[in-house]
Amino acid sequence: MERQDEPVQRVRRGRGRRPAAEVRAGVLEAAGRLLFTEGIKAVTFERVALTAGSSKMTLYKWWPSAGALAAEAYFARSEQVLEFSDTGDIRADLTRQLRAFVRLLTQDGAGPVIAELIGAAQTDPDLKSAFSREYSMPRRILAIEAMERARGRGQLRDDVDVSMLVDQLWGACYHRLLVPDAPLSESFAGALVANALDGASPRS
Amino acid sequence: MERQDEPVQRVRRGRGRRPAAEVRAGVLEAAGRLLFTEGIKAVTFERVALTAGSSKMTLYKWWPSAGALAAEAYFARSEQVLEFSDTGDIRADLTRQLRAFVRLLTQDGAGPVIAELIGAAQTDPDLKSAFSREYSMPRRILAIEAMERARGRGQLRDDVDVSMLVDQLWGACYHRLLVPDAPLSESFAGALVANALDGASPRS
Repeated sequence: MERQDEPVQRVRRGRGRRPAAEVRAGVLEAAGRLLFTEGIKAVTFERVALTAGSSKMTLYKWWPSAGALAAEAYFARSEQVLEFSDTGDIRADLTRQLRAFVRLLTQDGAGPVIAELIGAAQTDPDLKSAFSREYSMPRRILAIEAMERARGRGQLRDDVDVSMLVDQLWGACYHRLLVPDAPLSESFAGALVANALDGASPRS
Repeated sequence: MERQDEPVQRVRRGRGRRPAAEVRAGVLEAAGRLLFTEGIKAVTFERVALTAGSSKMTLYKWWPSAGALAAEAYFARSEQVLEFSDTGDIRADLTRQLRAFVRLLTQDGAGPVIAELIGAAQTDPDLKSAFSREYSMPRRILAIEAMERARGRGQLRDDVDVSMLVDQLWGACYHRLLVPDAPLSESFAGALVANALDGASPRS
């Protein structure tokens, strides 16, 4: 604990500061560790400052709420690859991407953390906008771009709203995560892609 | 306030009790009013008991958490018709049902309340199971039954998992409610149904 408090002391004494980027990375790392081990309720400015050896004032300056800090920490920590692999086959690419997403939620411990973040966002507008800005919106845009390219190759119909497909695929997974009335599995991910492309009506 | 406290007094004096069903209905009514006017944070055992003129002990006995009470109050209060109209045309019935759901979320004030309930459920296991038991699971089953009947009429393919369709339709709407990166509208609901039935692949 004393060692962690050291940087704060140094700042106070004016004997040199850590570069802001380094402090910021340390704060995010500490917040991410608390988030994944103890859940979102542990991510308070108080505890993160103590854990990171940073001053609470610094945190107040940089983040509008502890929830917003938690969202950015999640984003910084999550190893998930945002790039959409583009093999030229949208069916294969969507299936791979969605299965990887379900694996992340169900096997890699991210599921409860994302669920808590989205949950807390419903009563924390700062967290809500941070989650969108740092996480969900960039992902939506990457998916839309990949599907627009597929449309250019003739793999998706011209009259289909590809942004709607994001909700029909990833949104369906979030639904099973947040309202777990039916299991979230990789085979569910595969079925989502198949139906979003082929439809449930009998083929005429 | 004094008038509302009256029934509690009567119980204490043993001069007759209100029937349990009546007390229960009054508590749910009070909780629903607090939920819709002030949000989920106002639904505490303390305030609901005071508002309903009931004893806090009664509330503790009947509900495992204030969140669980809020969920049941929402369910009791919401006027939405759960019955699936069955005209024999699944495309029309799904479209009507999903558009009505979006109207409820966007125009009738239920959206923020459901969002708060699902949000709070992520850190309240009692609320999570109450939401499922009282609300989401009965709705899922009604949708599944309607789609099974449509399958029997040859309107849905045999190899389609109709439970997955619930997530691909209602789940997509919940996604736009909870992570509002794109607008939730009746035309979105229509596009969801069209794509879930027809698919996004070019028709061969």
